Amino acid sequence: MSATEAFVAGPRTTIAGSPTGPLAGLGFAVKDLIDIAGVPTHGGNPDWSRYAGIPSQHAWVVQTLLEAGASVVGKTITDEVSLGILGENVFDGTPLNPAAPDRVPGGSSSGSASAVAQGLCDFALGTDSGGSVRVPASFCGLYGIRPTHGRIDFSGITVQSPSADTCGWFARDAEMFARVGEVLLQGKLPTTLPTRLLIATDAWGFADPEVQDALLKLRHRLSSLIGHTEEVVMATPGLSVWQRAQRVLQSSESAKTFAPWLDACNPRMAYSVARNLTIGSMISEAERSAASLMRIEARARLAYLLPKGTILCLPTTPFPAPLKDLPISVLAPLRERISCLTSHGGLTGVPQVSIPGGLVGGAPVGLSIIAGRGCDLDLLAVAAKLARM
Amino acid sequence: MSATEAFVAGPRTTIAGSPTGPLAGLGFAVKDLIDIAGVPTHGGNPDWSRYAGIPSQHAWVVQTLLEAGASVVGKTITDEVSLGILGENVFDGTPLNPAAPDRVPGGSSSGSASAVAQGLCDFALGTDSGGSVRVPASFCGLYGIRPTHGRIDFSGITVQSPSADTCGWFARDAEMFARVGEVLLQGKLPTTLPTRLLIATDAWGFADPEVQDALLKLRHRLSSLIGHTEEVVMATPGLSVWQRAQRVLQSSESAKTFAPWLDACNPRMAYSVARNLTIGSMISEAERSAASLMRIEARARLAYLLPKGTILCLPTTPFPAPLKDLPISVLAPLRERISCLTSHGGLTGVPQVSIPGGLVGGAPVGLSIIAGRGCDLDLLAVAAKLARM
Repeated sequence: MSATEAFVAGPRTTIAGSPTGPLAGLGFAVKDLIDIAGVPTHGGNPDWSRYAGIPSQHAWVVQTLLEAGASVVGKTITDEVSLGILGENVFDGTPLNPAAPDRVPGGSSSGSASAVAQGLCDFALGTDSGGSVRVPASFCGLYGIRPTHGRIDFSGITVQSPSADTCGWFARDAEMFARVGEVLLQGKLPTTLPTRLLIATDAWGFADPEVQDALLKLRHRLSSLIGHTEEVVMATPGLSVWQRAQRVLQSSESAKTFAPWLDACNPRMAYSVARNLTIGSMISEAERSAASLMRIEARARLAYLLPKGTILCLPTTPFPAPLKDLPISVLAPLRERISCLTSHGGLTGVPQVSIPGGLVGGAPVGLSIIAGRGCDLDLLAVAAKLARM
Repeated sequence: MSATEAFVAGPRTTIAGSPTGPLAGLGFAVKDLIDIAGVPTHGGNPDWSRYAGIPSQHAWVVQTLLEAGASVVGKTITDEVSLGILGENVFDGTPLNPAAPDRVPGGSSSGSASAVAQGLCDFALGTDSGGSVRVPASFCGLYGIRPTHGRIDFSGITVQSPSADTCGWFARDAEMFARVGEVLLQGKLPTTLPTRLLIATDAWGFADPEVQDALLKLRHRLSSLIGHTEEVVMATPGLSVWQRAQRVLQSSESAKTFAPWLDACNPRMAYSVARNLTIGSMISEAERSAASLMRIEARARLAYLLPKGTILCLPTTPFPAPLKDLPISVLAPLRERISCLTSHGGLTGVPQVSIPGGLVGGAPVGLSIIAGRGCDLDLLAVAAKLARM
């Protein structure tokens, strides 16, 4: 694989967008989990498209962006069927993280983040169920959004865990990031900003001290921008407790989603992916049921903390991107730790934007802001204003 | 894959044997789990040889056969790292079962059985931990042997479950089968045959009625040959109890064997193989310990039943080869049922020979004879004499 690779192997899929529209002239990359009519969606696995069939129409997000004037410049590498947050695919390779070439790009929207970070497109589509936009945004030094769950039409996108799946995007700068948002969220950036900022002390404490230090300057700018700032504990039962609940929900849900495929096709997979699907298939109904109750509580907690006009900030990831090619036994606990800072997304459905926040040992880390459900445009407005400060 | 495929892809590995010796002029195929110096041993998985490295010398069995005059004609397809008894490899394809082309060949020594059955070589080497020679012998209508555990030097062969691994071979006729045996077992066929035949009523009852019927004629010939015949229950706690014990032992052992590879390389695998390795890694020490006690009891049971001069006969498999490309959910219970008739091998280490026994719906099934540990040559002598009756 060449050092600039971010796109899937084979002829590059390109589609010209409408000549006019708010995004006319821009080029975007599409995670190969998102349908383009007539082109197999490989989902990062050599045996997925044979099962899924050739899509007959574009995913809603692709169609909407084409109509807005943007052009498809290619489909990008993804972790297998979106199960992964590190961005190492044993079949397609590891897309380059140009900000830290010896490190993983993050996943599962690895190729989309890589393509944007390398300047191979203006923006790129990804999906985020457990952190698959937020983590690569943090690791590659990009803007990335996980929208409110259910806000953006998911039709034509490979389902993993329906109760957590979202479609988001990456950009290198806040202005481009917001322009795409106005199209996909079908609204205008608000002119008034939130007025209350919460600092999630539990989430900050969970990050490496170097990450906290690296993000502090941006956090202070954010605090100046918003004004009233206060400290809160975000996950009252504990971030690790939320993480476990969401792992139960997402693992059992994804195991259920892919069970018919696994049974019928016995696909080739990375051992680690098959292992996680196997463990997911063994989760008991009692455990799933307990996690569902915790989800109700977590949703209520964030709804209480985040009325309209309030946002919360936290580090996107507890550390910068790990090195490439580490053994499973080293990566597994890192993955678990990362998901302690991302699980609230799938668990509660709130929107989150990751902003390039600083460098640790030369590698990027992101600062995240979250808002109440439906307040996606508020987050984009904050990010845009912060960039102009 | 062409319909005659049994060998691994790429240039055919050939080595001329010694010009003289008891096997001079014969050609044999080598399961790609067995080392040939300077040639990668792929073990049926695209990421195994990278980890295992290039062997610097031939496996003992290969070296011994070459010195006896036989020549290597190629390396054959195997189930991934020998984990499978059906013979479907998602990377290399399913070798042809020429006796039943719409059915699997059996595995894991699938390509070796296929090559012999197709007449592409005179005999072929396989390995048998849980049934990997006996099952393809039954399904392809061949002679096949699982020797006494520990009798044939296993050096240079990919280890799966050391307490169960053996190296065996296939041939189309009993004479060829015995000639190879005299070389690999380093002894002469005895001139006196066993004088007591046990019919394992539990094992016969476990086979489909059609299989019992198809094997009855050969069983009667065997009974005439040996003379004194009596019925016994082979597995006093039950064949299914022995199967479960051996599954625990072999699954936990193979998971332990491959753990360092899985951790370091995160290999591409069939989902089903990765799933079984994952389940194997979760077996508790208490369960393993209970199965070890059952192994002691099973060994004592067969030692009691099979003094020198006594052999026992049973169907090799409960049914003929299943159709190709069935879903995992259909194959898994079939695999479990097959292993009820094969688990005594890994559990107790006794030698077993499968003899072409008859046809069911046009597909072959084998009749097996087993003897006490070390009595391998007695079984070959019985098979040879039976063929001349």
